[in-house]
Amino acid sequence: MSRFDLSLLEHAPRVPGKPRHKTREVRVGDRVIGGQNPVAVQSMTTSDTFDVEATVKQIHALEEAGCELVRVTVPKPEDAGALSAIKGRIGIPLICDIHFDYKMALAALDHPVDKIRINPGNINKANDPTHDRFRQVVRKAKSRGIPMRIGVNAGSLERDLCEKYGFPCPPAMVESALRYIEVAESEGYHDIIVSLKSSDVLVAVEAYRLFAQLADYPTHIGITEAGKPPYAVTKSAAGLAPILLDGIGDTIRISLLGDPVPEIAAAYDILQATQRRVRRPELIACPTCGRLAIDLEKIIAELEQRLSGRRLPVKISVLGCVVNGPGEAREADIGIAAGNGKGMVYRNGEEVRRVDEKDIVEALMEEVARWESENAGKIAAANPTRPGELEGLGRRKLPVVAG
Amino acid sequence: MSRFDLSLLEHAPRVPGKPRHKTREVRVGDRVIGGQNPVAVQSMTTSDTFDVEATVKQIHALEEAGCELVRVTVPKPEDAGALSAIKGRIGIPLICDIHFDYKMALAALDHPVDKIRINPGNINKANDPTHDRFRQVVRKAKSRGIPMRIGVNAGSLERDLCEKYGFPCPPAMVESALRYIEVAESEGYHDIIVSLKSSDVLVAVEAYRLFAQLADYPTHIGITEAGKPPYAVTKSAAGLAPILLDGIGDTIRISLLGDPVPEIAAAYDILQATQRRVRRPELIACPTCGRLAIDLEKIIAELEQRLSGRRLPVKISVLGCVVNGPGEAREADIGIAAGNGKGMVYRNGEEVRRVDEKDIVEALMEEVARWESENAGKIAAANPTRPGELEGLGRRKLPVVAG
Repeated sequence: MSRFDLSLLEHAPRVPGKPRHKTREVRVGDRVIGGQNPVAVQSMTTSDTFDVEATVKQIHALEEAGCELVRVTVPKPEDAGALSAIKGRIGIPLICDIHFDYKMALAALDHPVDKIRINPGNINKANDPTHDRFRQVVRKAKSRGIPMRIGVNAGSLERDLCEKYGFPCPPAMVESALRYIEVAESEGYHDIIVSLKSSDVLVAVEAYRLFAQLADYPTHIGITEAGKPPYAVTKSAAGLAPILLDGIGDTIRISLLGDPVPEIAAAYDILQATQRRVRRPELIACPTCGRLAIDLEKIIAELEQRLSGRRLPVKISVLGCVVNGPGEAREADIGIAAGNGKGMVYRNGEEVRRVDEKDIVEALMEEVARWESENAGKIAAANPTRPGELEGLGRRKLPVVAG
Repeated sequence: MSRFDLSLLEHAPRVPGKPRHKTREVRVGDRVIGGQNPVAVQSMTTSDTFDVEATVKQIHALEEAGCELVRVTVPKPEDAGALSAIKGRIGIPLICDIHFDYKMALAALDHPVDKIRINPGNINKANDPTHDRFRQVVRKAKSRGIPMRIGVNAGSLERDLCEKYGFPCPPAMVESALRYIEVAESEGYHDIIVSLKSSDVLVAVEAYRLFAQLADYPTHIGITEAGKPPYAVTKSAAGLAPILLDGIGDTIRISLLGDPVPEIAAAYDILQATQRRVRRPELIACPTCGRLAIDLEKIIAELEQRLSGRRLPVKISVLGCVVNGPGEAREADIGIAAGNGKGMVYRNGEEVRRVDEKDIVEALMEEVARWESENAGKIAAANPTRPGELEGLGRRKLPVVAG
């Protein structure tokens, strides 16, 4: 008899991970955000939007990196005037970003945009209980069939909510979002995506969790003002992983200072690590320690180079020690547990052969080719450019391993 | 009246963040792990331990980077023989890492180590219900007054638990840890720290959460086989932030393939982002977008360079736009909201002066000096090398900001 309550363990879920939070679907161009659709990766240009050449060039670079939706700022009439030309030359949905001036929102909606992002807290006239300016934008978006992101930001919350809650805390942010959702709903408009951003990880995590308890609109997740990599990527992962593991988040943007292209890889890395969108080979390498018996760094580098750009949701473990090696290697789709110049190759948890150290990379690549030929369905499901992508493909019941 | 249940918001905590999970204190050399002591940052050498020069050199580099505890592998008698010489030349507690051979554990405990790490799953003789080998190690550690980490790893779980639960899932890992805790307790030994590692983020998060529900022993947290940066750091942040935000985790190691020194910065970044250990200036920079009205990258780069190495838990926001600028700048200890060649300087939420763009860095550095002179207590508390460090210094009630 244990002094611990083992019944808690016996009743605990064995396959970890929460289901995706149920949200309604919102169509953005030819993509659908929310529901069971893949968490969409987006970014934002840094060019002057009216500079069509520069903006299109940056969007093409983002598309190349895997960006699935792109946002451009529209502060002036000439920026709105450029939207049609930009839209005609890019392959992904175009989002216009509006601040302060509701007239710019109305102007932008005359152009072929796929979504509009506004922060109602800075669009409305102060102390207007009718929210007339916001209503005008909602009505026009509705008549044009264009969805809207209501982008609440801790830094620009309405004064009455700051006073009610004392400071821009998570419940104040959520009440702000719900307030504008209700105004929009009163206009019969439901094509809404919500963000609740803060530069404070704890505030953002709590705001998204609270919102998900109260509403079923899809969410755009991100940490504002994260700064420069590498800290900004670590901070974004720290802030978004707790949300994603709770099943929350339908579209993601990583805010980095500087070139937006690295935002895309960072977003996919976070989705990969949280298994919300497994696209790449997951290479598991043993942490280095004095136990290392083969040149693991060289093997990993060569393997990474040969697998670079391959969109295969396969889990490969390369372990250079005999300690955790056999167990961990068996947990992967393909594994090597190596030591003393030899490698044991595992496939789906079963040892299939032994090879010399110099042949390890080649043996693993042969296994990858075999896995690829046997998993066409999985691979197609992991790499759609349209809705329907499956999530968490890496997750499966694992074989029993020895102690 | 709202259609939403706003009472949930009105009753929600306003200051986000969970309290630290209550754990017992375990002394490791001159440091205390658990309780309200700072989450300690550790790493592991990659040298042959018997090579004293190489090992000491690596430990000194780790200490320089801020490493607070160091682990060395002890696979052979000559490695155990080097422990005394290593211990005499380093300034931080020394942990010996033992695998497979309980006799090596007994040998290592003859030397002046501050903690021993074993994986009972690979120390015990298979099918020995008395756990005799593990007991021998516990008895010797007890007689020598040395604490122990029980390091459970999903890759090397006991066969009976894999059979009971079907595969190496979180409850199986936790039951393994509790089994050995009970054996140790039956010997009157309680100087225990526990780790529950997996290369799968979802498995690790769930295992640590389950364990914290059942036991009050401090935990060593980490994600095994995370691989190479930058993905390995993102994966570690994604796996450890959910645990840290739940208040779990008393000592942390980030496993990176290659040189261990970068593990230290990665660990502090994760603790900083989750506000479990705020040591550095937190520089908040606006994400770039077309709204950018000053050369923010240049300002941030200069500021980072001038603040480099400064251990001040101060939150500085530098925002190059007039949109989120004023609100966000007021949330920080020191802030600049800039646009059109001018910057508004904020101190504790109040605008204190306006400067030209070229004078922004200088103005911020003057504010930093002022903040430093007024916050000696906070600064001392954030940078102890001994127990007693406060957590979450960045957290305070924020002023009301305008919408």
